[in-house]
Amino acid sequence: MKKKDFPVEDVRRFLEPTPTVLVTAAYKGKQNIMTMGWYTVMEFVPSLIGCMITGSNYSFDLINKSGECVINIPTADLARHVVAVGNCTGADTDKFTTIGFTAEPASIVKAPLIKECFASFECKIHDRKLINAYNFFIFEVVKAHVATRPKYPETIAYRGNSQFVLSGKNISIHSDK
Amino acid sequence: MKKKDFPVEDVRRFLEPTPTVLVTAAYKGKQNIMTMGWYTVMEFVPSLIGCMITGSNYSFDLINKSGECVINIPTADLARHVVAVGNCTGADTDKFTTIGFTAEPASIVKAPLIKECFASFECKIHDRKLINAYNFFIFEVVKAHVATRPKYPETIAYRGNSQFVLSGKNISIHSDK
Repeated sequence: MKKKDFPVEDVRRFLEPTPTVLVTAAYKGKQNIMTMGWYTVMEFVPSLIGCMITGSNYSFDLINKSGECVINIPTADLARHVVAVGNCTGADTDKFTTIGFTAEPASIVKAPLIKECFASFECKIHDRKLINAYNFFIFEVVKAHVATRPKYPETIAYRGNSQFVLSGKNISIHSDK
Repeated sequence: MKKKDFPVEDVRRFLEPTPTVLVTAAYKGKQNIMTMGWYTVMEFVPSLIGCMITGSNYSFDLINKSGECVINIPTADLARHVVAVGNCTGADTDKFTTIGFTAEPASIVKAPLIKECFASFECKIHDRKLINAYNFFIFEVVKAHVATRPKYPETIAYRGNSQFVLSGKNISIHSDK
C-alpha cells in the first residue's frame, strides 16, 4: 500500500471504529507482530491510544523495553493473515517471513511498518501507570502513514470464537439543528 | 427490544467491535444519556471496560458521583437518535422525552436501561486511578441484558466530522492449523 503522511491528531478517523490491528515491535535485533482488538482513542492532542497488551505475549517485553510500537491497520482481504498472526508466537516464529508481511523502516521508532497494511501509526509509550495492574499501555502516536485510497478501508473486528464483523457502508449523518 | 440475561464475561462479543454506544447515568433525581465511542474491553473476568468520558460532559458528574452507569448499544436504525443525543446537553434537556428513548429500571445500578437499545450493560466503577489525569474510567460490567435476536446487531461507529461506518457482514475464520 502506498502511504502518505497523515495528521496524527486525526487518527480517530480510522481507530475510533476500532478494527483489529497488527502491532509491530522491535528490540535488540528481535522483531514481532501481534494482533490487537482491545484499544481506544484517548485524546486528539497529544494523539493518545490506550492499548491492552497481554503480559504473556511475546511482544509485551519488546514494547515495554523499547517503549515503542507501530499500530498497523490491515484491510479485510488480509483477514486470514491476521488470524495466522494471532495463532502463533514470535518466540519460535518469524511472523514476517512465515505469514508473508513486509517490514519497512519507520521514520521515528525502531519497530517496522507493515507494507501491506492500509495505515501505520508510529507510537511511543506516553504513560506506564496502568501497565503493571492491567497490561494497559498509553501510547502517543508520533507519526502517521495512511494509504491515499480508498478513502475508508474495509476492515475486520473480532468478536471472539473465530467470529469477525466486516466494516460496512460509510454514511454521513448531520445534526438536524 | 426484548432482552435476556447474558454472561458478563462474554460482552466482548458486542463491545470489542466498539460500536458507538449510549451511556446512561443517574444521580440524586437527575438522569442523562451521552454518546461514547472511546472505550475498550480490558478483561473478561472481572468484566472490565475502560471508557473516556469528557469532564465537560453533563454525565461526568452523575457517573463520577454515583459510581455507576449503563452502556447501551443502539442499532443502526437509531443513528439519527444517537446523533441527536450527541448534539444537546443534559444540563438543559431531558434527552429521554425530547429524543424519544424509554428509561427502564436496571437490576443492580440506579442508572436506567434504554428500552430501544439492542443491549444494556450495567456497570460500576472498578478503578478511579486515571479519571483525574485522562477522564478514563474503568468499569466492571455487573449485569448484562442482550436482545435474543438478531444474533449480531447492525451498529454504527463514529469517525468524526459527521461520518459513521455501519457494521457489515459477520464471518467466521478458523485457523488453518
